[in-house]
Amino acid sequence: MKALVYTDVEMLTYMDRPLPDPQTGEALVRVMASGICGSDMHAYLGHDARRPFPLTLGHEAAGVISGGPEDGRRVTINPLVACQTCEFCRSKRENLCPNRQIISMQPREGAFAEYVAMPLRNLITVPDHVPLAHAALSEPIACGWHAVRLGKSVLGGDMSHLRCAVIGGGAIGVGAALALAAQGARDITVVEPNELRRSTLADVAGFEVCAPDEAAMPEEGSVDFVIDGVGFAATRATCSALARTGGVIAHIGLGEATGGLDVRRMTLQEITFIGTYTYTAADFAATAAAIFDGRLGALDWIEERPLCDGHAAFRDIRAGAVAAPKVILTPDPS
Amino acid sequence: MKALVYTDVEMLTYMDRPLPDPQTGEALVRVMASGICGSDMHAYLGHDARRPFPLTLGHEAAGVISGGPEDGRRVTINPLVACQTCEFCRSKRENLCPNRQIISMQPREGAFAEYVAMPLRNLITVPDHVPLAHAALSEPIACGWHAVRLGKSVLGGDMSHLRCAVIGGGAIGVGAALALAAQGARDITVVEPNELRRSTLADVAGFEVCAPDEAAMPEEGSVDFVIDGVGFAATRATCSALARTGGVIAHIGLGEATGGLDVRRMTLQEITFIGTYTYTAADFAATAAAIFDGRLGALDWIEERPLCDGHAAFRDIRAGAVAAPKVILTPDPS
Repeated sequence: MKALVYTDVEMLTYMDRPLPDPQTGEALVRVMASGICGSDMHAYLGHDARRPFPLTLGHEAAGVISGGPEDGRRVTINPLVACQTCEFCRSKRENLCPNRQIISMQPREGAFAEYVAMPLRNLITVPDHVPLAHAALSEPIACGWHAVRLGKSVLGGDMSHLRCAVIGGGAIGVGAALALAAQGARDITVVEPNELRRSTLADVAGFEVCAPDEAAMPEEGSVDFVIDGVGFAATRATCSALARTGGVIAHIGLGEATGGLDVRRMTLQEITFIGTYTYTAADFAATAAAIFDGRLGALDWIEERPLCDGHAAFRDIRAGAVAAPKVILTPDPS
Repeated sequence: MKALVYTDVEMLTYMDRPLPDPQTGEALVRVMASGICGSDMHAYLGHDARRPFPLTLGHEAAGVISGGPEDGRRVTINPLVACQTCEFCRSKRENLCPNRQIISMQPREGAFAEYVAMPLRNLITVPDHVPLAHAALSEPIACGWHAVRLGKSVLGGDMSHLRCAVIGGGAIGVGAALALAAQGARDITVVEPNELRRSTLADVAGFEVCAPDEAAMPEEGSVDFVIDGVGFAATRATCSALARTGGVIAHIGLGEATGGLDVRRMTLQEITFIGTYTYTAADFAATAAAIFDGRLGALDWIEERPLCDGHAAFRDIRAGAVAAPKVILTPDPS
């Protein structure tokens, strides 16, 4: 099969690779849509020690089961393969499983390929009316869904009267904003510095979009629930300044390791900071269901490109020349 | 009446002051015990802009109602006077009331005095068998009680199987450790660098005590619930290193405004950081009840000194020459 392989720092090679060999309980999935994530970019730039080349990247995928008794079933893929036996798996926090694997990290090759092998329990059926490119958004949006669920729990469960803000208008931030709306929030602002991206997001239903310096930016100390989809010291400083007394910050981003939080303010104003990592299996399934029944909107903020042109897509994203918060790679035209 | 008045930076003067004039709904309380808090020390050193001299400090007090229909009732004092009408007060989070007052901050003089005026609703009856010097610990221990309650809620409610650690063996840290035990924790370690203080704490029931460098120190990534009773960058670094995957940090200390947290680790390991400030009225009452029925132990880790010698006590605490985590000022011998 063909795959887009990370073969050296800043080098992706479209090349032949062996067809994956599904193990017991696994299916071969023909990949029909596979999103480019910030962590793929991070690896491509040589910054992720967990992803040394050569490696096939990609972990946001949907496709069609190929072969076996379920041949032809349309599925979206939960890329986290947890052990099912540790205390975290038993308590349904599979995202914290210390033995977890993820496709695009050894020993599991990723989904920038014609086929990927996955455990059947990681596959969720996609209804016929849902494009597989939309189903592939389950993974990035599930990160936001999970963060929203954790924050909502601390905030008492009803978000209809709460002021919410999301820092960053990439797919993580947009997904978090859509998840906020789907879980009951009504007052949502996405803060995004890139004007090109803001223009793309202006018409996505369910939230407002503003630049960090505009008058539309929420006042300091006015936001009940802030989500950081970026994770740099500067964005965390914004979060701890925006958060209201008794409010919550949910932190998804992994930009910088330290700095930015005004801990004194967070203590005096009793603000809770929740580190959030990926999603549980239940969060992933809930996100997919919300995509399928339309609760996450039209999902028309994506851009599709063929897998064979994947390297160009990486270069364009890196150059800031892509307006869409998410590029989805699709099978080559044939 | 006599009072110990903060009259200049690093100066406390034992002097005559007018008897407080209780307003409607308030009682005059003869102060029988009033603890010295780190925030009193902070003000005394001239570092608290909210407490300019001249001012009578002290907000950890118990005493006896003097005059009126309740003359002679033994009480412990909740020093936070909330407005009872804002949204935080209505939702029983009086500690976040933006209109709150506290004795030892204008317009309310503090309890390092023979008498203090307090709303009757802030007074809790102390049973005859409980020394008023122990009842005066309600305030500092309530800070820990509150932090434990918030963390326990995030952790799922049952702490009997959880590993807990408290950074700092001052009254806040000791109170938090005792509150952990009273609320169901069984595995509690208090980390305290000062050897003199460690020796005082060695026999306090309910928790282990260790230096930051001893073998008894919990391993990194092993603690479900960490409480920071100090609040410096260095103690927060310890907290974020000790916390286990999925764990909770409750932060009471106000030492430094920023720094110390390993936010990347907190995100990848899904650690929750809770800023906690003082206590609600219900927390204060629950703490007092736990003092009264013995759940917080013998409370014999205090040192009593007469109010007229208060300035010497401040100097000794500042010099690190006091082994007890709490000094309680009592009426002058007469």
